[in-house]
Amino acid sequence: MILDVDGVLTDAGIYLGETASGDPVEFKRFDIQDGLGIRLLRDAGIRVALISGRVSAATELRARELGIEECHQDGGARKLPAARALKRRYDLAWHEVAMLADDLPDLPLFRLVGVPAAVANAVREIRREAVWTGQRSGGRGAVREFAEALLTARGEWEAAVEAYCRARSGG
Amino acid sequence: MILDVDGVLTDAGIYLGETASGDPVEFKRFDIQDGLGIRLLRDAGIRVALISGRVSAATELRARELGIEECHQDGGARKLPAARALKRRYDLAWHEVAMLADDLPDLPLFRLVGVPAAVANAVREIRREAVWTGQRSGGRGAVREFAEALLTARGEWEAAVEAYCRARSGG
Amino acid sequence: MILDVDGVLTDAGIYLGETASGDPVEFKRFDIQDGLGIRLLRDAGIRVALISGRVSAATELRARELGIEECHQDGGARKLPAARALKRRYDLAWHEVAMLADDLPDLPLFRLVGVPAAVANAVREIRREAVWTGQRSGGRGAVREFAEALLTARGEWEAAVEAYCRARSGG
Amino acid sequence: MILDVDGVLTDAGIYLGETASGDPVEFKRFDIQDGLGIRLLRDAGIRVALISGRVSAATELRARELGIEECHQDGGARKLPAARALKRRYDLAWHEVAMLADDLPDLPLFRLVGVPAAVANAVREIRREAVWTGQRSGGRGAVREFAEALLTARGEWEAAVEAYCRARSGG
Repeated sequence: MILDVDGVLTDAGIYLGETASGDPVEFKRFDIQDGLGIRLLRDAGIRVALISGRVSAATELRARELGIEECHQDGGARKLPAARALKRRYDLAWHEVAMLADDLPDLPLFRLVGVPAAVANAVREIRREAVWTGQRSGGRGAVREFAEALLTARGEWEAAVEAYCRARSGG
Repeated sequence: MILDVDGVLTDAGIYLGETASGDPVEFKRFDIQDGLGIRLLRDAGIRVALISGRVSAATELRARELGIEECHQDGGARKLPAARALKRRYDLAWHEVAMLADDLPDLPLFRLVGVPAAVANAVREIRREAVWTGQRSGGRGAVREFAEALLTARGEWEAAVEAYCRARSGG
Repeated sequence: MILDVDGVLTDAGIYLGETASGDPVEFKRFDIQDGLGIRLLRDAGIRVALISGRVSAATELRARELGIEECHQDGGARKLPAARALKRRYDLAWHEVAMLADDLPDLPLFRLVGVPAAVANAVREIRREAVWTGQRSGGRGAVREFAEALLTARGEWEAAVEAYCRARSGG
Repeated sequence: MILDVDGVLTDAGIYLGETASGDPVEFKRFDIQDGLGIRLLRDAGIRVALISGRVSAATELRARELGIEECHQDGGARKLPAARALKRRYDLAWHEVAMLADDLPDLPLFRLVGVPAAVANAVREIRREAVWTGQRSGGRGAVREFAEALLTARGEWEAAVEAYCRARSGG
């Protein structure tokens, strides 16, 4: 599963400021419920990758916290090269790839994957080519919603929840 | 009363960035009205504890400002060990414990406590086991709403408000 | 006019984090349209003061930018001492004072002033004693809305807008 | 095209805080989808300028990232001098200038330009003089919406999208 970052893992906001010494600082707002959705996807054996069309340290930090090894950022908004490399590395066909997206930089890759999915706030061009559109916006649980929809479609959601809770019922 | 942090005391947002020297910085957004709700709970003799399934300096800072001594954070999202230790330390039965929660890491503990309560933005698995569900979302006054509901149910809200205001009517 | 800060000039959010050196940092979110409302009030000869029940450098910064000299913060949420001192200093009667408020710490002072006004997100105890309740929430233009309502009631709004624009029509 | 900053490129929020050394820091929240809208405008040969009535490093940072060379900030909220200089430099008539605005500091310039446009959250004085009013608020895709409306009116939107995607379909 390929996830876009700005507008999918975040609410599309870019918080910019400058420190007293004149250094720029940038924040992004991620969602805690999304983190658990990604965790459950990976527990179910689904590989999760981030491909962003913008370079930001915040994206790298969030990927590291979530244990996502495949985090690719391209300053020129080109997503196909990273996706093609992932496809080769994991020996996948396009129909085995899902993608959750919101905007035009996603479109060239979106048209190739087997499960193109859109967040609620996606632009028209993305929504009209999606096979699934969520009710939640990016950064407000959209990734969690898609994770639950996908695992439910595979008949694995209930068991994933129970396994997650059972592992935390000791102590 | 046990409060979850992300999604209950906050709006589930995690603001991530990096300073010029490459150090990560994380912000959380807390709600001022919640702070007063916690204050009134404690004035009414109810002990308040935070149990988070994630480790963050922001949580520690907010607990200190609110005068909450019991602030427990577990990087592996295990909440039962801290809750069991609190139960022993204060010599409580589970039916004497209330909990305000939003997501799956809360569930194992949520199933034990006497008053499991859900914020408006809680996931289905939490909402369906809750005895009370609020109309306000985490980080948007959900803790204040629950504090008022609880103190109102005990017939203590009006008196708590008047006592709070009376103490600030001098000067 | 006395303005509360958290929940009136801000959206009640308190953004907390820690720098790499372990120092706490706190942000508040103010609204640009409110700033112009305060400017127009002062152009109309109305003195504006901030009285906060919490101590924060962010409040001080915003007051300085807006040119508000009377900015009072009390860590114990006591607002009457600062208000009484202002009343004496400017030789005012309570009925000459307006206040825009949202929560219980405002209540003792709110009951004294001549024009007690509530933001849309104010708690019930404030709303039921208000003579005016806005449609906008704190930090989302509530101060601007109140400024416009007050100046409109005095028949001064249109002229204030035209004077503001005329002063910026040169160059 | 002249864009206001606070309330148009941002959601009108000003995030203020102070570092441990007592230095003020300010953040603004920009929108990723707006960035692409500006990119497509420029690809279509439309010059984009920012004129802000407030001075902020965050505005400068965002302009630099978007490749906007004309970024003018005036601490006294005077926008006409910068606009007149731009008009001369690029040898334009006022009817060739569009402007997206939200509040009173924009009004003197707004009354001169050929295409005065308002974001959804614009004040009444701006909305009633606008020839176009968007459905999206500042900082929530308002600039993107206006860019799409303008390019669609010129019959250039579909081709712009396809050209953008084609340039990213290699690799």
